[in-house]
Amino acid sequence: MSLFPPTLENLIEKFASLPGIGQKSAQRLAFHILALSDQDAEAFAEAIINAKRSVHCCSVCQNLTDSDVCSICKSPRRDEHTVCVVSDPKAVIAIERSHEYNGLFHVLHGVISPLNHVGPDDIKIKELVTRVADTDSSIEEVIMATNPDTEGETTAKYISRLLKPFGVRITRLAYGIPVGSSLEFTDDATLMRALEGRQEI
Amino acid sequence: MSLFPPTLENLIEKFASLPGIGQKSAQRLAFHILALSDQDAEAFAEAIINAKRSVHCCSVCQNLTDSDVCSICKSPRRDEHTVCVVSDPKAVIAIERSHEYNGLFHVLHGVISPLNHVGPDDIKIKELVTRVADTDSSIEEVIMATNPDTEGETTAKYISRLLKPFGVRITRLAYGIPVGSSLEFTDDATLMRALEGRQEI
Repeated sequence: MSLFPPTLENLIEKFASLPGIGQKSAQRLAFHILALSDQDAEAFAEAIINAKRSVHCCSVCQNLTDSDVCSICKSPRRDEHTVCVVSDPKAVIAIERSHEYNGLFHVLHGVISPLNHVGPDDIKIKELVTRVADTDSSIEEVIMATNPDTEGETTAKYISRLLKPFGVRITRLAYGIPVGSSLEFTDDATLMRALEGRQEI
Repeated sequence: MSLFPPTLENLIEKFASLPGIGQKSAQRLAFHILALSDQDAEAFAEAIINAKRSVHCCSVCQNLTDSDVCSICKSPRRDEHTVCVVSDPKAVIAIERSHEYNGLFHVLHGVISPLNHVGPDDIKIKELVTRVADTDSSIEEVIMATNPDTEGETTAKYISRLLKPFGVRITRLAYGIPVGSSLEFTDDATLMRALEGRQEI
C-alpha cells in the first residue's frame, strides 16, 4: 500500500531497481529529483539517454567509448606491442591512474564463471584472439591483469592457453604483499604467493 | 583525469550529485544503466521527467499528488474534523501505515530552523492557518505530529500559538518509551517524558 502518486511511485521503483539502492534510499533519491529545478531534472534524464545512446565498446579493445575506436587505441604515443587484458573498464581506469603502463588494453567485460553461467563465449575472448592472430598484429606481449581471485585466475589461464600457439609472450601481474600493508594482517594465500615470488635485492 | 567517454562521465556526475551517492557508487549505477536495455534506460529517463512534471502539492493539504486535490483530501470516508500536521510526505506514509488515523493531513514541507535559514514563511504554515481560519472549515482538532526534536517542537509550538485564536483543539503525539524497546537503553529525555506522561492502568 502506498500513498505516493503513481508517477512518484514509479520513479522510486526505478531507483530501487539499481544495485545497492534499497527502498528507503530510493525514496530519498526520488524526493531529491522532485526538489531539483525542471532544468536539472531534464538534464538528468538526458544524461541517461545520451550515455546509453552514445557509449559502446571500442571496435579494437572493447573498452567503453563514444567513438568507433577509443582514445587509447587511437593514440600514436601508446606502445602497440603490449596488450593488458582486464575484466572491466574500471580496471583500465585503475591502471591508467598508476601512470606506469603505456601499452594498449583489452577489456573482457566479465570473467569465466560457471556458477554464474558465464562461459568463454559470453565475454570478449574471441575478439582478443582475433586481435592477436591478425597477421598485421604487432602484439608481442599480453599481460593478464584479471582480478587475483579464482575466477580471474581461471580466465587468465584459459586465455593464456588459447594465445600460446601465436608465439606471443604471456605474463601476469605480480602477486605479493600490498605496499603500505602490515605482514601481521596479510592473509596466508597472499603471504605464500609473496614468498614464492620473492626477488633478490 | 578520466578515461570514460564524456557522456558516461556526465551520467556518473549526475548520479554523484544525488544525496548519499559517492563517486564509486555513482560509477556502479552508471554502469548499471549502460547494461540496461535501450527500452529500460528510456523508461528510467521518462520516470524522472514524468514524476517531475506531474507531481506537485495538493491544493488543500500540501501533500504530494498528481491531481489537484490528493486522494486523502478527496476521500469521503476520512474524518474531516481532524487535521494531522506533519513535516513531510514520508511522515504521512508512516502514519497511514499504522492504520490508526482516519482524519486529514497537512504537510509543512519542512520545519522552522533558523540555523538552516528556514523561517515560518518558508514552509506551508500560512496554508494551514488559512485552512483552519476558513469560515466553512469543519476542523475541530489539529494534531501536531512534527518530529520529536528541537526544530519539530519549536515548529509545533509556533503553529499552536497561531491557531489558538480560532478555538480549535490543539494536541500533539504522546512522548514515551517506544514499544518493544528496553528501559536500559532509553535515553534520559525520553524517560523523563515517559514519567511526566504516565497514565493510570
